[in-house]
Amino acid sequence: MTQPSRRDLANAIRFLAIDGVEAAKSGHPGMPMGMADIAEVLWNDFLRHSPDNPKWANRDRFILSNGHGSMLQYALLHLAGYDLSIDEIKRFRQLESKTPGHPENFMTPGIETTTGPLGQGFANAVGFALAEKLLAQRYNKPGLDVVDHRTWVFMGDGCLMEGVSHEAASLAGTWGLGKLVAFWDDNGISIDGEVKGWFTDDTPARFEAYGWRVIRGVDGHDPQEIRTAIETALKHGDRPTLVCCRTTIGFGSPAKAGKESSHGAPLGKDEVEATRKALGWSHGPFEVPEAIAGAWRANAKGAELEAEWNALFERYAAQNPAEAEELQRRLRSELPADFAAAADAYIAKLQAEGPVVASRKASQMAIEAYAPLLPELIGGSADLAHSNLTLWKGSQPVTGGTPNANYINYGVREFGMTAIANALSMHGGFIPYDATFLVFSDYARNAVRMSALMRSHAIHVYTHDSIGLGEDGPTHQPIEHLASLRYIPNNDVWRPCDAVESAVAWKAAIQRMDGPACLVFSRQNLQHQPRSEQQVADIARGGYVLRDSNGTPEIILIATGSEVELATQAADVLGDKVRVVSMPSTNVFERQDAAYRESVLPTSVRRRVAVEAGVTGFWRQYVGLDGAVVGIDSFGASAPAGELYKHFGITVDAVVETAKAL
Amino acid sequence: MTQPSRRDLANAIRFLAIDGVEAAKSGHPGMPMGMADIAEVLWNDFLRHSPDNPKWANRDRFILSNGHGSMLQYALLHLAGYDLSIDEIKRFRQLESKTPGHPENFMTPGIETTTGPLGQGFANAVGFALAEKLLAQRYNKPGLDVVDHRTWVFMGDGCLMEGVSHEAASLAGTWGLGKLVAFWDDNGISIDGEVKGWFTDDTPARFEAYGWRVIRGVDGHDPQEIRTAIETALKHGDRPTLVCCRTTIGFGSPAKAGKESSHGAPLGKDEVEATRKALGWSHGPFEVPEAIAGAWRANAKGAELEAEWNALFERYAAQNPAEAEELQRRLRSELPADFAAAADAYIAKLQAEGPVVASRKASQMAIEAYAPLLPELIGGSADLAHSNLTLWKGSQPVTGGTPNANYINYGVREFGMTAIANALSMHGGFIPYDATFLVFSDYARNAVRMSALMRSHAIHVYTHDSIGLGEDGPTHQPIEHLASLRYIPNNDVWRPCDAVESAVAWKAAIQRMDGPACLVFSRQNLQHQPRSEQQVADIARGGYVLRDSNGTPEIILIATGSEVELATQAADVLGDKVRVVSMPSTNVFERQDAAYRESVLPTSVRRRVAVEAGVTGFWRQYVGLDGAVVGIDSFGASAPAGELYKHFGITVDAVVETAKAL
Repeated sequence: MTQPSRRDLANAIRFLAIDGVEAAKSGHPGMPMGMADIAEVLWNDFLRHSPDNPKWANRDRFILSNGHGSMLQYALLHLAGYDLSIDEIKRFRQLESKTPGHPENFMTPGIETTTGPLGQGFANAVGFALAEKLLAQRYNKPGLDVVDHRTWVFMGDGCLMEGVSHEAASLAGTWGLGKLVAFWDDNGISIDGEVKGWFTDDTPARFEAYGWRVIRGVDGHDPQEIRTAIETALKHGDRPTLVCCRTTIGFGSPAKAGKESSHGAPLGKDEVEATRKALGWSHGPFEVPEAIAGAWRANAKGAELEAEWNALFERYAAQNPAEAEELQRRLRSELPADFAAAADAYIAKLQAEGPVVASRKASQMAIEAYAPLLPELIGGSADLAHSNLTLWKGSQPVTGGTPNANYINYGVREFGMTAIANALSMHGGFIPYDATFLVFSDYARNAVRMSALMRSHAIHVYTHDSIGLGEDGPTHQPIEHLASLRYIPNNDVWRPCDAVESAVAWKAAIQRMDGPACLVFSRQNLQHQPRSEQQVADIARGGYVLRDSNGTPEIILIATGSEVELATQAADVLGDKVRVVSMPSTNVFERQDAAYRESVLPTSVRRRVAVEAGVTGFWRQYVGLDGAVVGIDSFGASAPAGELYKHFGITVDAVVETAKAL
Repeated sequence: MTQPSRRDLANAIRFLAIDGVEAAKSGHPGMPMGMADIAEVLWNDFLRHSPDNPKWANRDRFILSNGHGSMLQYALLHLAGYDLSIDEIKRFRQLESKTPGHPENFMTPGIETTTGPLGQGFANAVGFALAEKLLAQRYNKPGLDVVDHRTWVFMGDGCLMEGVSHEAASLAGTWGLGKLVAFWDDNGISIDGEVKGWFTDDTPARFEAYGWRVIRGVDGHDPQEIRTAIETALKHGDRPTLVCCRTTIGFGSPAKAGKESSHGAPLGKDEVEATRKALGWSHGPFEVPEAIAGAWRANAKGAELEAEWNALFERYAAQNPAEAEELQRRLRSELPADFAAAADAYIAKLQAEGPVVASRKASQMAIEAYAPLLPELIGGSADLAHSNLTLWKGSQPVTGGTPNANYINYGVREFGMTAIANALSMHGGFIPYDATFLVFSDYARNAVRMSALMRSHAIHVYTHDSIGLGEDGPTHQPIEHLASLRYIPNNDVWRPCDAVESAVAWKAAIQRMDGPACLVFSRQNLQHQPRSEQQVADIARGGYVLRDSNGTPEIILIATGSEVELATQAADVLGDKVRVVSMPSTNVFERQDAAYRESVLPTSVRRRVAVEAGVTGFWRQYVGLDGAVVGIDSFGASAPAGELYKHFGITVDAVVETAKAL
């Protein structure tokens, strides 16, 4: 074979995708066939990465927001020389392969973020680009740009229709993320057919309205046009760039090109053959001739880039040892050595002092205590900073351009906020916390799920956690939210009952490296609870005996958050045979060993009452068929908080009566 | 008092809002003070409504998307002469008043839709405008425009930042909703302060990119400019209009105008006094002088408009009796008299024939059976029509302009879709069904909640309901979603086990007038279950004995959807002392009387196993501490469905072993 053409190189992607989908008998060939030429130019001429070290800190980030085209990314990783063998390509969509149906960051080297839920990969890209900008702002020195990489994202019509694309694009424009380049796969087709019946936006004008640079009308199958567009994008660093690429979905398939039939199903044996002929690809399934494979391999070039950067970083470290060490610590996702001890000292002090505050205030106090130790902590709120209490003395807005910028005014954009926070964590170097009212976690719901699926170290702060928020009424009063968030796999929900539990919850969230936490706080003041040292230590186990009975308990009261004080007051009335269990995190409690759980909730004690201002069904797993739950299963109402608690029967009296009736 | 000026009229709104918030000691005065002049011109010069009959079919719809400014709307309703007394205004935000913190459609005459969760009121407005357009298209005759009204919506910066505004605005542009007029309260302030740090969109350009007519730079405090803008908006009927109004939040308050401090808290006694002085309002709290009150009162004018329309409708009915009757039936939310019997006949036929199909296919068959009877049924999907199977033979796209248009290609816009569907229901004349994959109900989550809160008759179809969807992997596989949706108050979730239960679920959803239903269907084929006539009837009770034990059951197996066949097969192995309960809707089952519930799940039988391919915790409320659950509490994986069921241990064997181990 002679020197392969660019089209040959792109066809290698196309046929790996076609053959992979064909073997799996399911998948999405149309997008990889349509975007192969763009991907080829980007990866071979521009992308700075090191296939032998997918975690190289200064690599460019490449994100496939239209994640159903996963075979495009697997083909690229395989061809570029990542640890993704042809056998893995052949096992596309099979159990425990490295090539699942959609790209999963925890399965495959070189995958930065999990995509598939449309629009979120694009929002992640905005977060990745922000992370780079902020780290560069903080650590780079003249002539020593140790943080200097780009974020590239592929997106389809579906991503652009999703609301989250609006939220993220708007912020990217405001933040002037000049190193972010998005490629729009403008193929005019979505699953239902030709998009002109449901997607008539002038997308270039829309993005210009967000302050983006827009490069219009690029032929997505002409490598020279693609090169020129990317060069233009790189010329100016002040604004993010959208490259609008006209493409043909299923490019090369005689019968299915340009049609939705190429989108989400194998082409079929005959059509695969016809496509091979049409594109002049004479090689067998999964075969890539060495001339083509060799032209793709990027290991040597990547190693060279990495070596250059290592040398740069050495010079940097020699001149800026403290900063180099801090940056490296952050990129290793390691907390400062003194964090745990400092947090414990703060928690012990709180237990001794016993402040009576709203837990949202206690949350702010915890941030105030911990944040000075943690330059990686980056906060924010969806336009509720003064209600969520997420600002602290050291907060500096990211729009201010200061090296220590650590606070993001996300505006009223809960979904975009959460997807961006996920990316700040996935990029490395940051522990993000975001915030809104608990009820509006709904708006961000799938991004919270993605935090958990991606094992992202994102902390979601949700205040105003019950009918206790009062007058704003049922649209603002969470009922089902605690239960719903607890049921997301790998998500740790905490609902602390006082300032001490709040500080422990924050510590746990900061120390948890393999998943998110939702920290849920009250609007209203909460009593302080007395505890022994052992009890303070046991808070971290998610559930513990806060007040024990005299001898074997006859009744166990289980409560969380603002309802713990109702339980302790009810125990006062019910007498000394009553145990009170505080359960700030059922998720963490469930991870404790069986003996510990049995010690807190002995199987033999069946007179159990759970108290929480949320749905009752959730608590049946702790009280069983013989116990009872004091909670609320209807929507709330607009009135002062105290009246609502009475109206909905979440009171000390109700707990007492319920326990007595068992 | 002389003839009141327009400013006097607007100040009546301002001071009712100020005084209401002051009395409640909570609320949002800033927005009503800022938008009072716009509201005054719109309501007094343009709005066509009838305060004595808030449900007049041909009224204009007015929607306050920035619902925190609820006092604006209450002031307008009170002043215009709706049944909302000054005493109700004084009881703003108090328990069971008609003036809750945010506008609630079920509490207050004249409130079309519940708002507060930002952006959704705007999306609702798009749905209201679409409803009008479609009804007009179907029923109007030359010279007899019995459906002819406008939709007006107020929105703030927060609404515009939310992603759902993108989804809804894009569709409104595509649909050419010329009778929709949106007023943007461009006051430059959101809760965190001046929006320039987080909201820098060129909003007019953005809306032009959606195909809207945009009227720029209107002084929102100049009645003449406002009038001219509205007249311009009314001149052309081909596109929705955005009127960009520069306003001052907290207008009139010497210390707080233009500042976020006026947004979400009472002005305070001294500042209220200062504002009275500054605006020359010498009247006491809650006092509106008769000259001003009289100028506002719209009852007579409204009665006249209604009488005119009644006369028009009589002429229409005389010439088009069948259509008049159908339209009136639809507006009364009454099903055709023969619907129930026809549905029952279809269900009985299915039970006899016993088709083995995926429940998503069974859903399509049910639509096919019921839709010809129901011109009010309007379908749609978020770009998954061929996967959700929501199209039927009679489907005609709303973009086609035909009188029978009844299908909406929403594009990939789950949140916008659901908010629009809610509005189609609230408008009257439609029973909407929307659709996406179950996992992407997350994207629409708060709109589903709003369906339930507003008691909207919207039907949400969610297919691909478990790991049974197979290769698409964990991003697409719902785990926590069934439990999470069931916990939304007033939401009926159905997960049928075969074609018969699917048809019953659809019938129930269509017949339920005071709340939504989520119909959850499988991707994969499901076995048909034998049933007696009584059992067929009992499906509608949400849970029933599908196969009974010989005598008192020793073990009860409870299952839903695709897992019912696992339970019946396990029962085959376990012997004749086992009862199998099919529980397609826990929500409906919980509404049955205690005796019925006891007859299905006798308290004394504690050896219980629940089987569902979702989180296990939810089922503890039915199996208790002594029972067990076969389900999945982790994320899924990418592989063929059969392998996943084995991998995650949701099998007949697992049910058998679990039951034996009890």
